[in-house]
Amino acid sequence: MRLTLAAVCLFAFAAHAVDSGHVLRGYTPGDSATEITWEQKFRALPDRDRIREDMRRLSAYPHNIGSPYDRNNAEWLLAQLKSYGLDAKIEQFTALFPTPKSRLLELLGPEPFRAKLQEPPVSVDPTSGQTSEQLPTYNAYSRDGDVTAPIVYVNYGRPEDYEVLDRMGISVKGKIVIARYGMSWRGIKPKVAAEHGAIGCILYSDPRDDGYFDGDPYPAGPMRPSEGVQRGSVMDMPVYPGDPQTPGVGAVPGVKLIPLDKVETLTKIPVLPISWADATPLLKSLGGETVPEAWRGGLPFTYHVGPSTAKVHLAVAFNWDRKPLYDVIARIPGSRYPDQWVIRGNHHDAWVNGAGDPLSGTSPELEEARALGQLLQQGWKPERTIIYCFWDGEEPALLGSTEWAEYHADELKQHAVAYFNSDGNGRGYFQAEGSQSLENFVNDVARDIQDPETKMSVWKRVRLVDISRATPEEREKIRSRADLRMPALGSGSDYTVFIDHLGIASVDLGYGGEDEEDGQYHSVYDDFYWYTHFEDTTFDYGRALAQTAGTMVMRMADADILPFQFSDLADTVHLYVGQLKSLDAAMRSKAKENNLEISEGDYKALYDPKKPMVPPPVEPIPPYLNFAPLDQASDDLTEAAQSFDSAYAAAGGIAPVGVNLDLIRSERLLTDPRGLPNRPWFQHLLYAPGFYTGYGVKTIPGVREAIEQKKWTEADEQIARVAAALEHEAELLKQAQQLLPKSDEEIARAPAPTGVASRRSSPGQSN
Amino acid sequence: MRLTLAAVCLFAFAAHAVDSGHVLRGYTPGDSATEITWEQKFRALPDRDRIREDMRRLSAYPHNIGSPYDRNNAEWLLAQLKSYGLDAKIEQFTALFPTPKSRLLELLGPEPFRAKLQEPPVSVDPTSGQTSEQLPTYNAYSRDGDVTAPIVYVNYGRPEDYEVLDRMGISVKGKIVIARYGMSWRGIKPKVAAEHGAIGCILYSDPRDDGYFDGDPYPAGPMRPSEGVQRGSVMDMPVYPGDPQTPGVGAVPGVKLIPLDKVETLTKIPVLPISWADATPLLKSLGGETVPEAWRGGLPFTYHVGPSTAKVHLAVAFNWDRKPLYDVIARIPGSRYPDQWVIRGNHHDAWVNGAGDPLSGTSPELEEARALGQLLQQGWKPERTIIYCFWDGEEPALLGSTEWAEYHADELKQHAVAYFNSDGNGRGYFQAEGSQSLENFVNDVARDIQDPETKMSVWKRVRLVDISRATPEEREKIRSRADLRMPALGSGSDYTVFIDHLGIASVDLGYGGEDEEDGQYHSVYDDFYWYTHFEDTTFDYGRALAQTAGTMVMRMADADILPFQFSDLADTVHLYVGQLKSLDAAMRSKAKENNLEISEGDYKALYDPKKPMVPPPVEPIPPYLNFAPLDQASDDLTEAAQSFDSAYAAAGGIAPVGVNLDLIRSERLLTDPRGLPNRPWFQHLLYAPGFYTGYGVKTIPGVREAIEQKKWTEADEQIARVAAALEHEAELLKQAQQLLPKSDEEIARAPAPTGVASRRSSPGQSN
Repeated sequence: MRLTLAAVCLFAFAAHAVDSGHVLRGYTPGDSATEITWEQKFRALPDRDRIREDMRRLSAYPHNIGSPYDRNNAEWLLAQLKSYGLDAKIEQFTALFPTPKSRLLELLGPEPFRAKLQEPPVSVDPTSGQTSEQLPTYNAYSRDGDVTAPIVYVNYGRPEDYEVLDRMGISVKGKIVIARYGMSWRGIKPKVAAEHGAIGCILYSDPRDDGYFDGDPYPAGPMRPSEGVQRGSVMDMPVYPGDPQTPGVGAVPGVKLIPLDKVETLTKIPVLPISWADATPLLKSLGGETVPEAWRGGLPFTYHVGPSTAKVHLAVAFNWDRKPLYDVIARIPGSRYPDQWVIRGNHHDAWVNGAGDPLSGTSPELEEARALGQLLQQGWKPERTIIYCFWDGEEPALLGSTEWAEYHADELKQHAVAYFNSDGNGRGYFQAEGSQSLENFVNDVARDIQDPETKMSVWKRVRLVDISRATPEEREKIRSRADLRMPALGSGSDYTVFIDHLGIASVDLGYGGEDEEDGQYHSVYDDFYWYTHFEDTTFDYGRALAQTAGTMVMRMADADILPFQFSDLADTVHLYVGQLKSLDAAMRSKAKENNLEISEGDYKALYDPKKPMVPPPVEPIPPYLNFAPLDQASDDLTEAAQSFDSAYAAAGGIAPVGVNLDLIRSERLLTDPRGLPNRPWFQHLLYAPGFYTGYGVKTIPGVREAIEQKKWTEADEQIARVAAALEHEAELLKQAQQLLPKSDEEIARAPAPTGVASRRSSPGQSN
Repeated sequence: MRLTLAAVCLFAFAAHAVDSGHVLRGYTPGDSATEITWEQKFRALPDRDRIREDMRRLSAYPHNIGSPYDRNNAEWLLAQLKSYGLDAKIEQFTALFPTPKSRLLELLGPEPFRAKLQEPPVSVDPTSGQTSEQLPTYNAYSRDGDVTAPIVYVNYGRPEDYEVLDRMGISVKGKIVIARYGMSWRGIKPKVAAEHGAIGCILYSDPRDDGYFDGDPYPAGPMRPSEGVQRGSVMDMPVYPGDPQTPGVGAVPGVKLIPLDKVETLTKIPVLPISWADATPLLKSLGGETVPEAWRGGLPFTYHVGPSTAKVHLAVAFNWDRKPLYDVIARIPGSRYPDQWVIRGNHHDAWVNGAGDPLSGTSPELEEARALGQLLQQGWKPERTIIYCFWDGEEPALLGSTEWAEYHADELKQHAVAYFNSDGNGRGYFQAEGSQSLENFVNDVARDIQDPETKMSVWKRVRLVDISRATPEEREKIRSRADLRMPALGSGSDYTVFIDHLGIASVDLGYGGEDEEDGQYHSVYDDFYWYTHFEDTTFDYGRALAQTAGTMVMRMADADILPFQFSDLADTVHLYVGQLKSLDAAMRSKAKENNLEISEGDYKALYDPKKPMVPPPVEPIPPYLNFAPLDQASDDLTEAAQSFDSAYAAAGGIAPVGVNLDLIRSERLLTDPRGLPNRPWFQHLLYAPGFYTGYGVKTIPGVREAIEQKKWTEADEQIARVAAALEHEAELLKQAQQLLPKSDEEIARAPAPTGVASRRSSPGQSN
């Protein structure tokens, strides 16, 4: 989640800084001045010591879904929010959440070994010894299973890794695979393994990826120690997240549950995560060829692909219980547009103590809520309704956010303006991903936040850092574009249901990049001691997160015209369409090259009798696709967007209510209630987590994945569907533009607009 | 040493195979048929069992320069050559060759450690236990020294690694550096360290580079074990190789020696190589920041840059003796042009038992000599004189070849046609580097050698392998070029004095790429057991080397007109000139970008208080250089070369003697007796080992290194000098072309040409 590309003339920037008296986009000059004053008051409030103490309190015990301290935390959060003067409540749902009944992993054969499957307490770390409250190391939503077979090493376990195995002549059919964590969402690994016929899946943390390769292991440094284990969900969330038994509806009492044996999103084979200490004897037992260079991890021996001569016995069984979810929801009613909702969220549950994930984001969010409570007491009255959410059950499957949003789906489709998410937070650079209709808005807010370390704006900092790390071509693009590009959302946190299922414009934001933030990811050592010794130890960036997210919420809630902007969106769609064409062309030339290399004898030339290799099959040449509808729609959207944005700018913050209602609908129009092919829950036509990446986004996913999966008819159909949605979006913008005042005269004549100064709360007014 | 790029129409190839009745370039049709028959007879002779047994005999004991078995081997080689019926002798020289008197390396401080500095015997390996005959682990031509200081890790110890240290704010001044082997010639590491103020240098073999990362360690697999050490020279050979006390002249009795304290090419600081087992406590003692990702090796802990708190004590002292060199030289007199010499060489000395390096090349060379002896007995009479050389003292500093060629310099300048070198050989693909005037010749020979594994020609095999590994752009170039590109020669073996000092067209050739050939490089474990268990175990590629090099020697010795070709040379020069311009432009834009990033604040943005960084200085912008003389000369050479090559083809192998004499001079004209700036021994203007790479070639080195080192005036001067040489080359080609017959008529009328069938020995004639 980084802003990876960027721009704007450097010298122009100096003029546009905090307090420079600029007018906020979507505000009349008067309302802008008022808003800027309130925002400045707000940003002075978040307190680093409070963030630290909130983290200490919330991380004092393990607080996974279903644990006593999870509920205790929810109730404490509720009490805090109420104490800030906010209207808060707990909304309760339930969800399937399996916990281990038994776990066994052993290497049989001449040198037998039984895995410990346990993270030992570390003496300097006071909470690491809370073993009776800790969830054991396991992967949630692995099915029960008891299998014995030789093992095969499959690198990261992605589809492309199995292509390499095919070339080596290695099959995983009937085998147990051992895959290292990383490079894809973990749930992809057992899914792809099962598709290739494996009967079990072991996941382990290689020190090359989050151990001593990157820094000293805990507790000397931040990185994962030899016996550290990454817990985590392996549910097939690219099909749908949330409670597996209630897709599409909120899991409240009385809702019909899909029977367990009908649930599609459990793994097809048993899965267990282990440490590299436990993985070492298994990896050493592998025979066969040395693996390709890119497959080698950081352990001090040669990695072989297998299969092993000795067999491995993997047996896991779970309690398949439903557990309560406690979402803590606080609402600040809008003074002018109570039916327009600006939503902010971060989860509060963790796999264990969860200082980094999620409390480094939760505590700043709580501090935002406290600060907004203070502003309310000083007389601030947001124009729109603000909803602060503290989600439960994110870790297993985005449960709390998904069930809440599914339950409130009709209201949200009607009222939700935007959703601002955060999760674990770190030290370093501003990072945001989200809907490109908010790209300009996010850039504008980031221009107004001061970086604690460099004292320049966080926007300027990330832009310069991106420039310094870019290739010459990328640098040129960053320097010549006004806004930093904001990458699209994949999945992996609570924004998923908002953007992908409901079509609510969303942003996920945070800070990071200077520390090794993933060293204890989903481990017992992700706790207060670890975070306060190695991460954002001063909580400067916790404060910066609160300032940034809170400013976004306020500025969106108070705007006269919602500060959506569509030129950036249209530019991005144009980029995506270009990528799809390149992908299509690349697949065609790759297939041609593949066939030519087979026919000219390259594989005969590469034949090494000591390392036999299986040539790839001759491939059919992909046909040309009809991109015309997408090209047309992309052009039409670009024209409509530029025209709308100009008219918006000319309107100077003055517009009738209908424009805001159109803007709220703008993201919804990018969805299709039929959903994506084979996964109807995912309805956004521009963004989805990849079916085979899990976290990583696939943009224009219906088309892109059809091309990747060589479904050419489906690709053509999806092109037409996406093009139609983009044409509707363009139409909406034309319609909205009609509502905007068309001349200076008209603007002057406009009826008392949204931002009548007298109606708006100004700092200093008592209330 | 690989052919890395390539080409020719695939379908055209099938027609051009062994025995297809094609006419060899530079031969009349009749002479070509005769030659092809002799070559086929030759290629049937090399015997894999003999190659194996020769290797077993020569590797039975350590045979470094000065050892009893080195001399024993030389005498045995002499006897073998004589037994083949060849006129052979030993030519003796002497050279400075230091051996260790004492070696000490210890870590002081709270956890003291003393390095073992010894490679233990391995029970399955019979020669690994010959400890009393083995040279200790050390770096030859390190100066004596006794230093105590903290250590700093400098990655591979190249100039660019010190730039990274500068950014991290780490100085090596007054420190001992520890550098890993690899990525540059080892002698560069202490040289650059001393330039930066270090007072000692430790070299170690990281398992990431030649240990368990690439394959199982010995004796389970071919790779370097924990206590394996790479011996090797650290003399400053980019200044001059050979005996340090007699640069430029043969070290025979009576020659004046430079006093030891005036020798420039010894290291400025003491150096010692160690195993990774010995390096581990030292590396673990390092404090400071975690090193950049590219600096991390394969050991199971976090690599820190240092400096260490604990000090390291390094003390080495050497016996500075002169030792005898035994070059074994066999001569087959030319029947028609005895004064035109075709030279073939491979060294016979080793650091220890040296089965891979060099005997896997020496034994095939001996087998070539035996096979040529057989041909002579069958009546073959080479047109030109053939000289087979078995060099001593290559390992310390290319001693035997350099002293021999310096001693015979005047004759060689007059008579040498070409030099064909090999060194250690392995299993896999044909590899050649050399003078581009021989590129077409080498391609032609490679087209006629059958690959033992695939049964296709070795030329076709390497071309297809290159294609399969190339980027799409490179593939296009390979497929569209008739000849495979032959990379230029850097240094690292005995061709150096021939090509770089004397300007004799040279080729270095061998096979490899399928096995891990460097796993025991310069270790006691590079022995017969290791080679015959893990490398070219069948000696199929030893035989292929003998067939290839022998065919080259025969075809060059027997040609009517020497098969030099200049279009490939001109094409390559054009490529080099383009590279120089790109380098110049890249340095200019890099400096501009550097300065812009400083001015726009990128380094302020990157500032991390936990990892302070020192911004680079503002750089002067490199001026534009005058490439016009080089462009002109490159064009003139191209025109002259294409014209000459056409006339050559039209002449059909018929030409007066003068053409051959001009061709012999063609490589000499590419040298300048003034030599390269600051290293007059290196006289070739197109090729030299890099002053800061050691092995790696710098093409058009005078210009390229001037640009790299930002000496702009020197760059302009060198451009003019190289351009003048290229213009002379073009003139020579024009002059030679004048001597060629100009029409079919003239060809028909030509006086009895070089290849009168009756004078030429044909197979089947008795003699």
